[in-house]
Amino acid sequence: MLVNGSPAQFISIRDRGLLYGDGVFRTFPARQGRVAHWLWHLHQLQQDCAALGIQCPPRDILQAELQQLLVQHPSGVYKLVVTRGEGQRGYVPLPQSHTSYFWDVTALPSYPTTYVQDGITACFCDLRLAEQSRLAGIKHLNRLENVLAAAELGDCPEGLLRDAHGNVIEGTRSNLFWVKNGQLHTPDLSRCGVAGVQRARMLAAFPVTVCAVDVPTLLAADEIFVVNSLMPLWPIRRLAGQAWHTFPVAQRVREFLQQEDTTCSVS
Amino acid sequence: MLVNGSPAQFISIRDRGLLYGDGVFRTFPARQGRVAHWLWHLHQLQQDCAALGIQCPPRDILQAELQQLLVQHPSGVYKLVVTRGEGQRGYVPLPQSHTSYFWDVTALPSYPTTYVQDGITACFCDLRLAEQSRLAGIKHLNRLENVLAAAELGDCPEGLLRDAHGNVIEGTRSNLFWVKNGQLHTPDLSRCGVAGVQRARMLAAFPVTVCAVDVPTLLAADEIFVVNSLMPLWPIRRLAGQAWHTFPVAQRVREFLQQEDTTCSVS
Repeated sequence: MLVNGSPAQFISIRDRGLLYGDGVFRTFPARQGRVAHWLWHLHQLQQDCAALGIQCPPRDILQAELQQLLVQHPSGVYKLVVTRGEGQRGYVPLPQSHTSYFWDVTALPSYPTTYVQDGITACFCDLRLAEQSRLAGIKHLNRLENVLAAAELGDCPEGLLRDAHGNVIEGTRSNLFWVKNGQLHTPDLSRCGVAGVQRARMLAAFPVTVCAVDVPTLLAADEIFVVNSLMPLWPIRRLAGQAWHTFPVAQRVREFLQQEDTTCSVS
Repeated sequence: MLVNGSPAQFISIRDRGLLYGDGVFRTFPARQGRVAHWLWHLHQLQQDCAALGIQCPPRDILQAELQQLLVQHPSGVYKLVVTRGEGQRGYVPLPQSHTSYFWDVTALPSYPTTYVQDGITACFCDLRLAEQSRLAGIKHLNRLENVLAAAELGDCPEGLLRDAHGNVIEGTRSNLFWVKNGQLHTPDLSRCGVAGVQRARMLAAFPVTVCAVDVPTLLAADEIFVVNSLMPLWPIRRLAGQAWHTFPVAQRVREFLQQEDTTCSVS
């Protein structure tokens, strides 16, 4: 672990990331000393910092630290957190706050191979996402809704979250896509939800319709799947009493998601 | 500062309070080695922990630590934070998580005496509170909305927050009350907002109508005031182009709020 550039495992109890969730993060896998799609993660991190008015650490510093960590930990789940740092007491963010940031590395998860090949049984969570357009899409540290939703999962590998109107928005830790008549769709995240890197890559690579979706419309899809940087893609085989057996589009998308990003346009 | 019972200023970067805002807190003043309404703060802390399924540290331990700190710091703003502690990676909260908790003490704020005597000029924040009934009322660590709202304040001592429907809910760091025809009112917090200790004390001591309030209804009030444990009560003198000049009910309420809680029914 690195905290503000130095080996450490602790952060000040006055850090606003802890006191208010006043920060952002990204999570991504490293394998054999390489991080796929790093520039995408960096770009999203920079965007999320800008949305909250937090100064993102410079790219060259983050990349140097990442390279240093990859030597020690060639494989693992990398987490990079950037917070507004310490400030005076109270909610008011000072313009001259000094950013805090830290890296953590944990073991790669091992999911059943059937999740990828045959798909998962997903569920709908009872928890409804609140609508906050000022925070929608941002991968910020206010994640209690995800915690409450994840507590509902039990043996279910992933749960789908709806807003108060019944629109399906995302998974507890993934973005949602569906296919209807050959066309890819994903939910609109302008009022709630987290915009992940794999979702961004898909939007840049494929024609994807971004729209609202209710449960009946989703269940009428030809394929449904969820993506995130760790999975990277799980088709949904069973959901709300319905079943799907073939996932031809999902398979092509998965092959794309697993590509290295040598042609990545983010710089 | 005390972290998990020991003098420390740092917490693990794997603490869920930092990673997800998965925790709760209370803030209250100490003066001359005494904390007023401590049992109310403890009670609300215990209630908020229970609402999130976090095990609250035992009362006797918290009280012993508070007494210890009051010897070193007879005056100051005390902050007590309880988090779900460390867990495996991911949102799922483990049932056997070990709670983390810490105390911090900072200098008492010095507000202009005119705020208490003559009232404040308040404003309406543009930020609208999201509605999440599962988290409403809880003083949890997901406070980015308060941060964004506080960033709007500028020279305004306190701003009022509305929900998406235009109902006025609370101040950025205070609870709201108004008086109409001699009757006290306060907003319903079942869908958003934080239920503070001074609000709870008022609900226990006075007949208060808990209801929705829109801006025109609020502006038609005979008195408006905000409360929290540090102020403890500021009348609102100016708001949205209107002015109020006398605050007879607010003055009586302030005298009540400043009383010690020797007769407090919470135990």
